[in-house]
Amino acid sequence: MEHETCREIGTAETLAVLRSLEDAEILIHRSPDGDCIGSGYALYHLLKRFGIRSRVCCADPIPSLYDSITAGVTFEDFPAKMYISADVADRKLFGELPQKDAEIALCIDHHVSNTHYAKLLHWDHNASAACEVLYELMRAHDLPLTREIALCLYIGMATDTGCFQFSNAGAGTFAAVAEIKRQYPDLPYARLNRELFVMKAPGRIALDASLMQNIRISEDGRVALIFASADLLRSLKVTEEDTDGMANLPMQVRGVEVGITVKQKPDGSYRISMRGGDDANVSVIAQHFGGGGHVKASGCSIADGDPEDVCGMLMDVASAMLRGQTEA
Amino acid sequence: MEHETCREIGTAETLAVLRSLEDAEILIHRSPDGDCIGSGYALYHLLKRFGIRSRVCCADPIPSLYDSITAGVTFEDFPAKMYISADVADRKLFGELPQKDAEIALCIDHHVSNTHYAKLLHWDHNASAACEVLYELMRAHDLPLTREIALCLYIGMATDTGCFQFSNAGAGTFAAVAEIKRQYPDLPYARLNRELFVMKAPGRIALDASLMQNIRISEDGRVALIFASADLLRSLKVTEEDTDGMANLPMQVRGVEVGITVKQKPDGSYRISMRGGDDANVSVIAQHFGGGGHVKASGCSIADGDPEDVCGMLMDVASAMLRGQTEA
Repeated sequence: MEHETCREIGTAETLAVLRSLEDAEILIHRSPDGDCIGSGYALYHLLKRFGIRSRVCCADPIPSLYDSITAGVTFEDFPAKMYISADVADRKLFGELPQKDAEIALCIDHHVSNTHYAKLLHWDHNASAACEVLYELMRAHDLPLTREIALCLYIGMATDTGCFQFSNAGAGTFAAVAEIKRQYPDLPYARLNRELFVMKAPGRIALDASLMQNIRISEDGRVALIFASADLLRSLKVTEEDTDGMANLPMQVRGVEVGITVKQKPDGSYRISMRGGDDANVSVIAQHFGGGGHVKASGCSIADGDPEDVCGMLMDVASAMLRGQTEA
Repeated sequence: MEHETCREIGTAETLAVLRSLEDAEILIHRSPDGDCIGSGYALYHLLKRFGIRSRVCCADPIPSLYDSITAGVTFEDFPAKMYISADVADRKLFGELPQKDAEIALCIDHHVSNTHYAKLLHWDHNASAACEVLYELMRAHDLPLTREIALCLYIGMATDTGCFQFSNAGAGTFAAVAEIKRQYPDLPYARLNRELFVMKAPGRIALDASLMQNIRISEDGRVALIFASADLLRSLKVTEEDTDGMANLPMQVRGVEVGITVKQKPDGSYRISMRGGDDANVSVIAQHFGGGGHVKASGCSIADGDPEDVCGMLMDVASAMLRGQTEA
């Protein structure tokens, strides 16, 4: 819901608002990732330097993956007087936070989909991450990049760009990290990258290996499908959040334009994710099955059916539709 | 072998040497990778702008993975008068190139292990890549970064840093890429990254899945081992070069400090690669088996034995030695 008077502001006014805060809570989104945690904690450190009490609030626990950000930080217990948010595009994304309906004095964000729910909004939807927006704010006003803040901002930008791999990693992102690395050459960048982007829990290793072992690839090599049966997920004790990023697996096969991931739920229904390469539009394929989404990332559901039939049909339809798309 | 009069030179003299070349061959190393191909072709484009004929020479074919660099380039046929090299630490790395014993007028490199085999050497062993050395040379003398050169340099730096993930990706690397992206925001960076770092051939997908499916992890979770039998490699028609990077697989398991990869050769002998995490020194473990290498990447060979026995022994010895290392 749009705030009736939401106003977009630049860096100078944002800085003035930050300096004027008192006993503030910094709200980040549920299922927190490196960018909302990084920008939330960076704001906490910045406010502390301004002599302002604050704390980061999230509906879900911060995963231990981000211990390097949270270690050594203890939030004071105080009744909050004001609320700001970082990396939260929509009020709904606060999740079940008690403060989810509070007035948000300021939102700092980079999502093009921001719903303008805050009173004041400082955003740059061309930035890779909220952490990049925050970096630019600090740079514009010569605020010193402390070691803690540098670490937070690095992790946020690395997370949202897939370790500088995605198309959103722009010149500004690289320039920001260049400056962070220039000032703090000895932060454990490579170790953080391994932990964040390479390492997987043993259960997830087993799941991915099993899925890839049984991957189906169409005759022309352009459609690939993996199927995670309810039995497999149960036997490996894999929870919903453990399957993060699973939908990207079929796209690892060279030449694949449409990657399909079929997850069987305990009730026998199927949740399907689709990913598209340069030439595919998976949104229309998902629409064919009553789903939808983005051109390169979509999804749909299928209520029931024999797994073989469901997977076979998805492969056939996707192959035929892809041929239609690329011959056009 | 050291050139009796090898002299290290700075950017100004290097540029003067480049401008003085005539009908030059640019030698790169065998088993060419993104950095030697990128720096070799960038030099070709630069010399062309100076009005100098040159061509890139490699003992092995350039993999199709680098088509974006080689596309549109046709080398003239001319008898070479001079030789330079890019990203080649040692003359031995020319491989079976007919020119392998020629006098090298200039070498541009970043390997700390450079053997000073050339007459003149322009290097920076703190640079992530030969392409970064070349970028700095061009920047120092305001040479225009053409689109072709920008693409070459990007690919070289991305390759040698594992897409900006490794510890060698320094402030200078990020600043160079920031400038490349600023000047050419529309190069297909994300697609290149996917092709270079994410996508694998179907056979390699099957191999990795099978290896990870059968990964052995020690009870304490700190040693992991994968075993590629000669039968498996044969059945998947996997060649030696198709196993590039295979030794990194066991290190994907969270918590693993020593990753061991055992490859069985057709003659029944074993080639073993070891990788170490933050706390391990795999060089001493490899030495125990008559091998050696670096602290974080070593290898050894075992002449024969039952696969179960060989793998079990490697796991046991590595676990015991790791305990010794980390308790010390």
